[in-house]
Parts: sequence; structure tokens; C-alpha cells
Amino acid sequence: ELDRDRFVETMRYQAQIGATEDGGLHRLTLSDADREIRDWFAEQMEAEGLGITIDEFGNMFGYREGTDPDAGTVLVGSHLDSQPYGGIYDGQLGTVAALELVRTLNEADIETKHPIEIVNWTNEEGSRFQPAMQGSGVWAGEHELAEEYARTDADGNVFEDELERIGYKGDTPAEPQREYEAGLELHIEQGPYLEENGKDVGVVTGVVGFTWGEITFRGEADHSGPTPMHHRRDALVAAADVITQIRRLPDALGERTVGTTGHIDAGPNSINIIPETVSFTWDLRDPETAVIDEARERVLAEAERAATREGIEWEYTDRHRTDPVQFSEQCIDAVRDAADSLGYDSMEMVSGAGHDAVHVAKEMDTSMVFAVSEGGKSHNESEFTSWDDCYAAANTLTNAAVSLATA
Amino acid sequence: ELDRDRFVETMRYQAQIGATEDGGLHRLTLSDADREIRDWFAEQMEAEGLGITIDEFGNMFGYREGTDPDAGTVLVGSHLDSQPYGGIYDGQLGTVAALELVRTLNEADIETKHPIEIVNWTNEEGSRFQPAMQGSGVWAGEHELAEEYARTDADGNVFEDELERIGYKGDTPAEPQREYEAGLELHIEQGPYLEENGKDVGVVTGVVGFTWGEITFRGEADHSGPTPMHHRRDALVAAADVITQIRRLPDALGERTVGTTGHIDAGPNSINIIPETVSFTWDLRDPETAVIDEARERVLAEAERAATREGIEWEYTDRHRTDPVQFSEQCIDAVRDAADSLGYDSMEMVSGAGHDAVHVAKEMDTSMVFAVSEGGKSHNESEFTSWDDCYAAANTLTNAAVSLATA
Ligand SMILES: NC(=O)NCCC(=O)O
Ligand SMILES: NC(=O)NCCC(=O)O
Repeated sequence: ELDRDRFVETMRYQAQIGATEDGGLHRLTLSDADREIRDWFAEQMEAEGLGITIDEFGNMFGYREGTDPDAGTVLVGSHLDSQPYGGIYDGQLGTVAALELVRTLNEADIETKHPIEIVNWTNEEGSRFQPAMQGSGVWAGEHELAEEYARTDADGNVFEDELERIGYKGDTPAEPQREYEAGLELHIEQGPYLEENGKDVGVVTGVVGFTWGEITFRGEADHSGPTPMHHRRDALVAAADVITQIRRLPDALGERTVGTTGHIDAGPNSINIIPETVSFTWDLRDPETAVIDEARERVLAEAERAATREGIEWEYTDRHRTDPVQFSEQCIDAVRDAADSLGYDSMEMVSGAGHDAVHVAKEMDTSMVFAVSEGGKSHNESEFTSWDDCYAAANTLTNAAVSLATA
Repeated sequence: ELDRDRFVETMRYQAQIGATEDGGLHRLTLSDADREIRDWFAEQMEAEGLGITIDEFGNMFGYREGTDPDAGTVLVGSHLDSQPYGGIYDGQLGTVAALELVRTLNEADIETKHPIEIVNWTNEEGSRFQPAMQGSGVWAGEHELAEEYARTDADGNVFEDELERIGYKGDTPAEPQREYEAGLELHIEQGPYLEENGKDVGVVTGVVGFTWGEITFRGEADHSGPTPMHHRRDALVAAADVITQIRRLPDALGERTVGTTGHIDAGPNSINIIPETVSFTWDLRDPETAVIDEARERVLAEAERAATREGIEWEYTDRHRTDPVQFSEQCIDAVRDAADSLGYDSMEMVSGAGHDAVHVAKEMDTSMVFAVSEGGKSHNESEFTSWDDCYAAANTLTNAAVSLATA
């Protein structure tokens, strides 16, 4: 079992780097705060005698040798970057838990057959630079390195420049450098199911798939006063129709389907000018590929109807798409058994959010542990997981990792 | 009749000051381009021997004496400032026409019983500094001088400082300095009615009233993936309901009712976060006060319904409100008779846009002449009125002004 006091203290410490006034965390990827937390994380890994690798995409690894030179490595970790004005738990909890796992093994002088490697992935959040889960995605060969280097943030800063600026563009190729046996990630649930069901930890059996995209309507800017209603080609009215439909869509599809418009931009955006250009996003998720595809089709069909009704042009871009992921039985069992043996009440669940583990799962058997998210809140400063719940999840992660590393 | 060549040449000349690459005009109020056009306008007035007054709000007047010392003055003019990347006609046409009126009278040595004063109002457009029709509004006592001086633009520049900077903060109080007999303004229609009805000029009998306001919904930012639909409090979905209703509202009210949402802002505005705060505007107009009030009530009622449905907070602010204006019979007749006697095919109409004439009408009998707007376009670079249509409207203005000034 982990040292609860040290674990909580470490969680509290990391939360000070990029802390917001209201108790949240603003530690955008490749920012100065990200550099600071990375420096701290590297120091901690060094103090534990781990072999450190920084790859060319800034992913940070710390390697602890095993006793069997032929045994594959168990990879454990998450991410230390945060959303803008996000919470202090999110992926930080999973990365601190991975560090505590190694500290505990070292302290108790426990050797494992399989090597254990802990990891801090670059840019999981995807809010400063898109896409989300970028570092693990490059590492797993899902994204092209050159393309991801070239991404820019809202101020025009280039990813590669920012990575160099903070001193985390390493030499090692961003791809698996060893044989891996299994991967584990602890993350907060970010949803309400554990709390609603009164459970201590979640055993994650898979992740929903999703489609992200953006629709742009192009109508005509005109004066809001003298332009009669039947003359108008109003891009915002068309957008409103589709946004409403995205919200109502899940009722017509699966029980787990969710649909969201998170982003909207209108131009010229002036009180007495009819909106000419409106861009807005869709985010549609479900555990079933067929449902996701159907949802996307219906959104595009509604966009076509709305555009026709307003007599305007429209176009769309698919921004991102991932298939649902089914985790490995072996790893799921390890997590469930760890929770059971520690006396925690667990439940199996499908993650509604994407995680680095989705990419990791392409390279090795993988599963995840979820910690309770109070009220299901995340990506904002009021995100909360009690230290008891953090500790239960971190312990479950530790025991599952050790069982996989000693098997 | 006006000298057509000189009139067109003058229109072309003014359009070069602040010209955009695409044939439009970018001559924001109190900008360097505004200073330049004002200097030019003052020179032209001086060349015609007019008595120039610059008031403390930068409104520019040029006075031509009449023969009867007891007769009230006829005020004729519009504005020389433009929208960002606006058109070259808008109020510029009406100000150039007023200048040509005086030039024509001088050239032909025509004396009028009533003095004639031409005017260029400060900041009609209201895009750099709000509100629109600011100079005429201060002059008519609708706005407090100190309050309007203190307005700031998007870069934080203060109105009064900018007025001083361009050298147009005069000494004369911004209020009527004489007895006025009547006011006339020529402006482009900014709507499609003249063109659709195949008319040459519009005889403006009044101006619609309008209400402007802003609604803000406050829901809860949450993760778009793991948050089930029934847990959501989505501010954008609520906004979409109201925007749709604002668009459909006019069908249920008067034939001339228009309703627009021109501005929307969402926060945090990220593809995978449920929108927490969404603010958007309403602009509702009609020739009847009762219809405007009813429209506003329905919008607020729909906002309440949408907020209840989403379980979110909401609030609204009224931003602006003007009653419909009915112009004076005497002036309307003068405009109609002028068009008739020149052989132009005219129609009576209510303006859907606010104009300086709305404020002028508080001080004296007033009417307006409208010029054809092709396709009803305005406030963008593709705004277009043929020189024939410009000339027809300017001639109508001239004859109406002379008839009022000689009556
Ligand atoms: N865990 C998490 O917030 N991932 C970001 C990608 C997503 O929207 O699911
Ligand atoms: N004429 C004009 O564009 N006025 C601006 C105020 C309005 O929106 O009516």
C-alpha cells in the first residue's frame, strides 16, 4: 500500500505549479508552468534512480529495471498538463500515482520480474494545441510527427518552437523503445456514474468512440433593420437549428450517446448586422461505432436542411475520429482483482472521455482505473475527488501494476 | 437641378478618403480618415461662403443666410463617417448632396427666404464608439455630453481625447443654436423595397422603433464525453432555442416586424466542454410600439422557458430603445412634391434603420429622401447605388429643401 500522507502531500505539491486563485490548475501544455512541473517530475524520477528518456515529442519516461531480462515492460502513467482553469486531479492524479508506485517499490526494496516504466504524456488535454492525447498518439504512430510539430495555438505559436523553448524536445524517437507487457492508467472518471452507484473505484473495460467536426454556414451580412425577414440569409439561425438537433439527437439513439456543440464563432458579430459566417463544432460519442456514424449522418443531414431553408452555403470538416476501444481482459482482471483484494467496492465501466490509454492500447494490453469524480465535474476548477477516493484509486493502480509486473 | 458631373465627381472624390482596396470605405469616426474628410468638408463650406460652426461634439454646420431675418432655418445633411469596411454611399451621399444644394444655389444666385444650414453629424455609425447617431443625439438633448465624451472604443481610446486629437472639439455648445423651420436628410434605403417596386426615390414617412438587448445564460461547464445528457446544463442549447424564436417571431407579429440576433459569445468555447456562459443580443423592430413591446416580451418569455428546460440561470439587459418616429406631413409633402415635379417615380416608406433625422425630428419638422440600394445591401463594401439613383435622390432633396426654404 502507498504512503497516504506522502501521496496526498505530493498531490498538493504538484497542484501549486500553475495554481489558479480559485483552487484550480492552469497548466497548459508547453507553457512555463508545464516546464516547471516537468522539471519537478524529472527530479523526482532521478531521485528514485529511474532511467529517464525524453522523446522528441516531449513525452517523459522513467524506467525501473526488472529481474527478468526477457520480460516485457509494464507502462504506467498519465499526463501533467491541464485544461485552462481546470482541476487539480484529472491526469495529474494518475501521474503522481505512478510516481508513488515507484517510490513505494523502492522504499520496500521490492523487485519485479517485469520492468516498470512511468510516463508523463505531452499534451493530453488538446486545448492549447489540438488534438487531445497528442503525445501518446504520436508515440503510438497514430499521428505524423511533422504534422503535429507544425500545429499552432490561438496566438500562432508553433508546437515545435514551444517544445524547444521549454527545453523538452528530446533526442529519442517518439515511438515504443522496448517490448511492453501491459499498460495501466489511472484517471478521474469525469462522469457521475461511480458516485451515483456508491462505488470506490472504476474498472475501465473500454472507451467510447467519437467523431469531432466543424460546420460552417456562410450566409450574407446585411443590416438588421431594413432587411425584411424573407430576404435574409442568416448563418446563425441555421446554426441554431443544428445545435438544437445535436442536443436532442441522443434521445433518438443509444442510452450512452452524447452530443455537444462546445464551440461557436460568429462574424461579423455585431448587434445590428445579420450574421454572415458561423462556425460551430460537433462532438458525438457512443460505445458503438454504428451509433456514432448514424449520429454524424443525422447532424450533416440537419445542416443540409437548415442551409436549404436559409438559402445559404455550408461546408464541414471532420476534425477527429476514434473508434470505440475494448481493453484487454488480462488488464481488466488485474484492476478488478486489485480493487477486490484491497476491499474496495468497484464497478466496470466504459469511459466517455478519451485518454492516452486509448493510444497505448494500440501497442499493448491495457486497462484503466477510474477515481470518483464528485458531481461528475471535470475540466473546471470545481473538479473534486476526495483524498480517500484518490488514495483508493492509486492503491488499486499500484496493486494491479505490481501483479502484472510480477506475473 | 444639380450639376450631375460635379455631383458625381464630388461623390467619387470623398470616396477616396479612407477607401478600401475592394472599393468600399473604412472611415471610422474620429479616425485620421475622418479628420481628412472633415478638413475637406470645411474647405468646401468655406469656399461657398458659409458660416461655419463646429460644436463641442464635433458636429459641423455651414450656414447660408436667408432673406427674412425672422424665418427659421432649414437644416439639411447627414454623416460622413462609415462602418468598418462599409460602402461609399450610406450617409456620405446625403452630406455631399447637401453641399451640392448650396453650391447650386450659389452658382445660380438664388436667395431663399429661410436660411439653409448644412450639417455633417459626428459618429452616426456607432461601430467604433456606441451608440449610433451619437452626435445628433447629443445635439438634440437625448444623450448627456459628459457621458458620451467618456465612451471608449475597443482599444480603450476615449471619445473626447480622439475628438481633440483630430482637432474637431469646437467651442459652440452641442445644442440647437437657432430657430429651425424644417430638417431634411438624404440617405440610401439600406433595404430592398425601392428596387423591388421599381421606384426612383423613397419618401420617408417615419422610422421604425426598436429595442436592443442582451441575454446571458449561465449553465455549467462540464466534459462533453462522460457527462450524460440528463446531467447537463448547457447554455448554448438554451441560446439556440431563443435565437430560433427570434427568427420565427416576425411571422407571428406584424408584416414589417424584424428580429435579429447579430452577436453571440460562448465560454469557455472549447470543442469538448459543455458551454457554461452564452451571451447573445436581440434587435427587434417595428413601426408600432405595441408590436415591439410584444416581441420583446415573447423573447424574454422564451428565454425563461429555455432556462427552465436546461435548469440554468439567466439574466438580460436592455441596451437601447427608441420609439417609432412619425415624420411631419409638411416635410413629407415637400419631398413627395419635389420627386413628382422632377418626374421621378416615388413611394412612401418607413425606414427600418435609425438615422440622425430621428433625433433632428425632436427639434423640428423633418422628413427624409431615400435612394435605391441595389439588392438592399448596406454596411458592407458591396453596397451599391447607381449614379442615376444617387442623382435622382439628390435632386429630390435639393428641390424639397428649396421649396421648404422659400415657402
Ligand atoms: N480525458 C479527457 O479529458 N480527454 C480529452 C479528450 C476527450 O474529449 O475525451
Ligand atoms: N442607418 C443606420 O445604419 N443606422 C444604424 C442604427 C441602426 O441599426 O438602425
